[in-house]
Amino acid sequence: MNALSPLGMVSEFPSENQKSSTEVAKDYFVEKDGEKFAGMHLLLDLWGARNLTDPAAVDRALRAAAQAAGATILHGHFHHFGPDGGVSGVLVLAESHISIHTWPERDFAAIDIFMCGACDPYQSLPVLKAAFEPTSVQLGEQRRGRIG
Amino acid sequence: MNALSPLGMVSEFPSENQKSSTEVAKDYFVEKDGEKFAGMHLLLDLWGARNLTDPAAVDRALRAAAQAAGATILHGHFHHFGPDGGVSGVLVLAESHISIHTWPERDFAAIDIFMCGACDPYQSLPVLKAAFEPTSVQLGEQRRGRIG
Repeated sequence: MNALSPLGMVSEFPSENQKSSTEVAKDYFVEKDGEKFAGMHLLLDLWGARNLTDPAAVDRALRAAAQAAGATILHGHFHHFGPDGGVSGVLVLAESHISIHTWPERDFAAIDIFMCGACDPYQSLPVLKAAFEPTSVQLGEQRRGRIG
Repeated sequence: MNALSPLGMVSEFPSENQKSSTEVAKDYFVEKDGEKFAGMHLLLDLWGARNLTDPAAVDRALRAAAQAAGATILHGHFHHFGPDGGVSGVLVLAESHISIHTWPERDFAAIDIFMCGACDPYQSLPVLKAAFEPTSVQLGEQRRGRIG
């Protein structure tokens, strides 16, 4: 997977993150390895994968993955492209999202794990590997909204 | 703009893409610039952006972006983190998804446009720039599920 090179941030910030009185948005910028950014986005391509055609099972796998990373699930939707077809779905999280698109005819799935706040998307990886049993994996990391 | 064409079969597949009797899955692999892959994924970071706090407006912007690219919208969900807070949302498409997370306190938004089939995610960019009026933009392209 090609690496992306984010630009450094050059603008000003008027204030610290706003948090509403009714819920914790958990969307503050994070700091890691001396960098500051909005969120960590993992792009995960699974090859030789299994269990790609049951939307309920895919839903359960992604929910377990979100929980493993400490994320808060706000909404989920999983679409099935026919009885033996692939699944497209997403969990909207307080900390961003996890999405999946499967191509069972190719034993392939593309997963995105985008998390900010205190969540660690890397904690989702063992859960997803256990659920889909890929024979090979491509993983890319993008630090979205890098400002320093 | 280069046209995308469906991938020819290169390994054993039990059948052509399954298409349900009620909808076209539109999730065949694509070919572009001599490469074959599942779908084109654009990672778009907007800085100095506006209109980041109204979930209905964000929803409309993403729907217009999906339509500009020729995508089929299956489902949408947009979450608002309080009256002046950011928005997190996603459109599930027959051709994958468009997602957005906004940080209005930073005038920042992270958008993902993941499309396969005959859709061109680059067609979404002018719509998104018009809707959110960023002063600067970072764009990355990832070809997901590359097989050649």
